[in-house]
Amino acid sequence: MKSGKHVMLLALLCVGASAPSIAQSPPPPATEFISEFVIANRILADQGVIADGFGHLSARSPNDPNHFYMSRARAAGMVTVADVMEFDLGGQPLDQRDRRLFSERFIHAEIYKARPEVNSVVHSHAPTLLPFGLTGTSLRPVSHMAGFLARAAPVFEIREVGGNDTDMLVSTPKLGAALAKTLGQTPIILMRGHGFNTVGTSVKQAVSRAIYAEVNARILMEALKMGNVVYLNESEAAKIAKKSPMPQ
Amino acid sequence: MKSGKHVMLLALLCVGASAPSIAQSPPPPATEFISEFVIANRILADQGVIADGFGHLSARSPNDPNHFYMSRARAAGMVTVADVMEFDLGGQPLDQRDRRLFSERFIHAEIYKARPEVNSVVHSHAPTLLPFGLTGTSLRPVSHMAGFLARAAPVFEIREVGGNDTDMLVSTPKLGAALAKTLGQTPIILMRGHGFNTVGTSVKQAVSRAIYAEVNARILMEALKMGNVVYLNESEAAKIAKKSPMPQ
Amino acid sequence: MKSGKHVMLLALLCVGASAPSIAQSPPPPATEFISEFVIANRILADQGVIADGFGHLSARSPNDPNHFYMSRARAAGMVTVADVMEFDLGGQPLDQRDRRLFSERFIHAEIYKARPEVNSVVHSHAPTLLPFGLTGTSLRPVSHMAGFLARAAPVFEIREVGGNDTDMLVSTPKLGAALAKTLGQTPIILMRGHGFNTVGTSVKQAVSRAIYAEVNARILMEALKMGNVVYLNESEAAKIAKKSPMPQ
Amino acid sequence: MKSGKHVMLLALLCVGASAPSIAQSPPPPATEFISEFVIANRILADQGVIADGFGHLSARSPNDPNHFYMSRARAAGMVTVADVMEFDLGGQPLDQRDRRLFSERFIHAEIYKARPEVNSVVHSHAPTLLPFGLTGTSLRPVSHMAGFLARAAPVFEIREVGGNDTDMLVSTPKLGAALAKTLGQTPIILMRGHGFNTVGTSVKQAVSRAIYAEVNARILMEALKMGNVVYLNESEAAKIAKKSPMPQ
Repeated sequence: MKSGKHVMLLALLCVGASAPSIAQSPPPPATEFISEFVIANRILADQGVIADGFGHLSARSPNDPNHFYMSRARAAGMVTVADVMEFDLGGQPLDQRDRRLFSERFIHAEIYKARPEVNSVVHSHAPTLLPFGLTGTSLRPVSHMAGFLARAAPVFEIREVGGNDTDMLVSTPKLGAALAKTLGQTPIILMRGHGFNTVGTSVKQAVSRAIYAEVNARILMEALKMGNVVYLNESEAAKIAKKSPMPQ
Repeated sequence: MKSGKHVMLLALLCVGASAPSIAQSPPPPATEFISEFVIANRILADQGVIADGFGHLSARSPNDPNHFYMSRARAAGMVTVADVMEFDLGGQPLDQRDRRLFSERFIHAEIYKARPEVNSVVHSHAPTLLPFGLTGTSLRPVSHMAGFLARAAPVFEIREVGGNDTDMLVSTPKLGAALAKTLGQTPIILMRGHGFNTVGTSVKQAVSRAIYAEVNARILMEALKMGNVVYLNESEAAKIAKKSPMPQ
Repeated sequence: MKSGKHVMLLALLCVGASAPSIAQSPPPPATEFISEFVIANRILADQGVIADGFGHLSARSPNDPNHFYMSRARAAGMVTVADVMEFDLGGQPLDQRDRRLFSERFIHAEIYKARPEVNSVVHSHAPTLLPFGLTGTSLRPVSHMAGFLARAAPVFEIREVGGNDTDMLVSTPKLGAALAKTLGQTPIILMRGHGFNTVGTSVKQAVSRAIYAEVNARILMEALKMGNVVYLNESEAAKIAKKSPMPQ
Repeated sequence: MKSGKHVMLLALLCVGASAPSIAQSPPPPATEFISEFVIANRILADQGVIADGFGHLSARSPNDPNHFYMSRARAAGMVTVADVMEFDLGGQPLDQRDRRLFSERFIHAEIYKARPEVNSVVHSHAPTLLPFGLTGTSLRPVSHMAGFLARAAPVFEIREVGGNDTDMLVSTPKLGAALAKTLGQTPIILMRGHGFNTVGTSVKQAVSRAIYAEVNARILMEALKMGNVVYLNESEAAKIAKKSPMPQ
């Protein structure tokens, strides 16, 4: 196993690494963990999942399950180690200084509260996912890389909890909790007119699910125009989801 | 706040900057303003909004509301400080020398005349916006990043003012004024068979609106193929437009 | 006017250049002409018009109207000055040495024979143009950058001249002449199941027409899915074609 | 002919090389062969055919027809000479050490068993090919670069051999043999909900077929939305397939 800090997560996200996963290892010291977290931000930007500068990634602290890491408000492709901040599950920063925060950090905080096994959350505005949340067309798995979509992705309609005149942002604990409730035990949730979130037991799982949710959306979008689509059945989806894209 | 001139606008266009917006600060000295203007040109090219070398960006002078800045005729991705020229509201350059001008600078001049609060205008030929101007399909907001589209974007049909045998270019004050009239009080106008323009109270607002108008068009284009689309309602659009992508 | 050899054509293809066009100047010495020709090859690759390594560009010799330049068989994005060869209108190289030739150089040779005013030809396989040649859907102008498409682009069906069992390649003078006849006096011709060609009075005109034919195809493809499309009318197309993308 | 090891395959995959093909030459020493194999992996990544880090390329050993080369499990765009491993036709590595293997190497092993003339296999998840395997829409040739698609590509439905609850992966000799049987004597096979494979008598043929299968899919996808499509007929497809993209 290569021990270089900066390339490790990149390697984990590719299939070439024989390294044990983060979850299987004892928690690495924070600096290595943060370095990998930064690389994961860059990967999300590189893959077009957070291409617009406004999505965000978080990771539960390996040292304290009631804390999570997230960048100060800045484009994922520009995040550096110095931008990473620590938050509590109320969404409050431990050391804000003069740094601007993402207003939607409550998406992350409330999911961590509701789902103890979740250790990472991606929030994305990827354009290819939006149409599914806008039209009632189910996002279901057509690629074996997206077995985790076995059950059609739930859609968060902010009007159901916030009424018809919100600003669309999940910027309060109440809205975050409602979103976490709609997410339930699933790995992905669409947000109508906004984007989507994936969760995982590790950064690599949440990130790779976000990447393949986007790929699956592109495939399904075109397949639906051609005719009747054969989806992965429940058994196929469940079995491949245990192996791919990232088991944990 | 970082004081580096060249990276400032880039930072402002991303969410990472805690800097006060241009409009809130006292007008910076012209050189810094121009440096930022150049970076905004490059961003428009990088984001595919002015990808073909023929769109253009302008900014009202912070020193004289009857003047505006615009590059000499050259691709946005290649604009340098030395290319930026100053124009009066008649569209005439203060110091042309032997530099070639964009023939459609009257789009900008006439909008600045009609809309005192507008301080920046983008003119783009982005291919994903064109179909909306060609088919009568309304460009309405489906992404929360495009709340500014609340009212369906008006379409400028040059035939209505110029007749059936124009060269399609808004290359006179008369045509520019007609376009500004169709624009009215809205933030965006489609031009049939040509492109679109966005306006803003700041360069960052006009530029970010252009970027997200393009993203919204891509999303809507695909959503329309899937079925009935849930648009942002007027209240949602108005509230999010006050915050995102750039409040001013 | 900048005199740098390598940047000149690039500049001409952007709007920033105040330089007189090639056709207006006295013919430059061959070395400068060839340097520009090489840059034009790179631009076609960069813009995705010759992205697959198998399209080609030619230019009539400024010194001998019965000769033209073309690269040896190699990807446009890799062409260097040393790859450029001179051919006669029979499609024969003046100095082949051991260099491999494009088998379809007869497209170019026969168009130069039939159209004395044409000084450059682009042959492209751009995927976005192909559907128009395959389905009978007319490629007509919807972008003001593509006024040259005023008359729907003719389609070359090789079966009409070569029968039902050709190898699809225009690799003989006879097939080239048939293609030139179908082209007639138009600026572009689609080839069913193969690609398209544009012609121009200059390299910059042929190249820019190829680039905007591709852009127009992308716009039209999506507009046709939305509903009834307003095309440029004949007068608009003719007037804008005199100015844009490149008058000559 | 250039003798540089690293650029040779790249050159062969472009049309510029006058070099004899691999199959025509005596087998090069393993090191040169492997260097070319590595470059072919990079080309597949660069062209978006293996963009997700999970496809793979193999090549039958020029020294032993019962052996083949394949990278350890890692993204094609990152493969180096040191990653290339040798396998027998049972899919077993000759020298595994601690390297992780692609679980689907049996696709390659079983095709090499069933098709003695095949010397290279590509396995890809390219999103543009998937819809054809999902909907029953035939992948047939519409580009002259894809004459090898003359007969509509067969579709491997893993349920037919593995039942309704597989994990979708061809990770056993039995499943590989079933896939090879469905492939029959054709050059390409689609895998429902998974991807596709191309085969060739040389690395360059398998790789170039994979690239143009993807291009053809993009063209056909859009053409089908426009109306009735004219496909290459059998004679056209057969004749051009002997010349292009790579005869062997």
